Amino acid sequence: MASLPQPIATLIAALNQLPGIGPRSAERIALHLVQAQTDSVRQLAQAILAARERIQTCRTCGALTEAQPCALCADPRRDSGLVCVVEQPVDIISIEKSGTFRGKYHVLGGKISPINGVEPEDLRINELEARLENEPIKEIIIALGTDVEGDATSFYLARRLATKGVTTTRIAHGLPAGSGLEFADELTLSRALEGRREIR
Amino acid sequence: MASLPQPIATLIAALNQLPGIGPRSAERIALHLVQAQTDSVRQLAQAILAARERIQTCRTCGALTEAQPCALCADPRRDSGLVCVVEQPVDIISIEKSGTFRGKYHVLGGKISPINGVEPEDLRINELEARLENEPIKEIIIALGTDVEGDATSFYLARRLATKGVTTTRIAHGLPAGSGLEFADELTLSRALEGRREIR
Repeated sequence: MASLPQPIATLIAALNQLPGIGPRSAERIALHLVQAQTDSVRQLAQAILAARERIQTCRTCGALTEAQPCALCADPRRDSGLVCVVEQPVDIISIEKSGTFRGKYHVLGGKISPINGVEPEDLRINELEARLENEPIKEIIIALGTDVEGDATSFYLARRLATKGVTTTRIAHGLPAGSGLEFADELTLSRALEGRREIR
Repeated sequence: MASLPQPIATLIAALNQLPGIGPRSAERIALHLVQAQTDSVRQLAQAILAARERIQTCRTCGALTEAQPCALCADPRRDSGLVCVVEQPVDIISIEKSGTFRGKYHVLGGKISPINGVEPEDLRINELEARLENEPIKEIIIALGTDVEGDATSFYLARRLATKGVTTTRIAHGLPAGSGLEFADELTLSRALEGRREIR
């Protein structure tokens, strides 16, 4: 055959768009699917559609949710005085997995990046300021990445929130757990040194 | 949140069934999909269903195809005297990619494996013998894997075809291209030695 049957080629092209799926994996999955049980294939297609259609972002915090407000915003056991600002909804899932944060969240939806045309007004900063008026927020923890845009956005946000009567903090940067000094780059090391804490 | 919203968890479980997709990749893809453009997500789901519904196996050779007979069986430029026997339809794609074979194919659909309950009558051997009656086949090339079941099936097939007046051959086993002796196991090396050919 000069090439694969067209429906398989179309499927490979679609799978190849997914994150972490290269042409080889896409081909392997496509060939698995055309030979799999029709039921399980239909289930997969339905799960994809159901997830896309039923999942929305919480109007308050921006987390991925089925209901409004999301389970995080609606949970009375979580500390309303503490709000953790993250870039993307998926970042909430990472922090929740660590199991150490019991406050609420706010998704910015990006980082300030003039080169990519992302200005402060494109982020959910107005929504965060509105929450400061309506919720008993005492501390805002900025949990953005440590690249240039993450730094710039953190500083911009801290300056803008300075007049609002809340404490603004940023998560610590330093050596990752389980790593040795020999694997750390200079910037990580200099930040780890800057952020040193007394041992009591 | 105690756990992910249920439609996302369902999607992750479904993706996790795919070959080569572990729990981390499944989560990454699921979170990508729930945040992606609705159109592209719908396209993916449709490509999955279309491929599963429109692809069938060729009644003659067993290849994956949209039409009966498949493009390979229908191609008059291919050598009808030469039939390559493979285990799975996907093996045809691998051989076609090598670009060196211009004959026809026959998919066995498995290997003889009494431990897994696969007996000779579960394979498409009768169909192969029927083709020997109807097609001008001169040589059958057995291109099965080199594990115990592949060997057993090859020998069984060669014995059964011995009375049919066709030449039966098996593809060569030896060092893979681009590999050095130091990476080859003993069995590969002994087969490479057995299969040595004179340099002219």
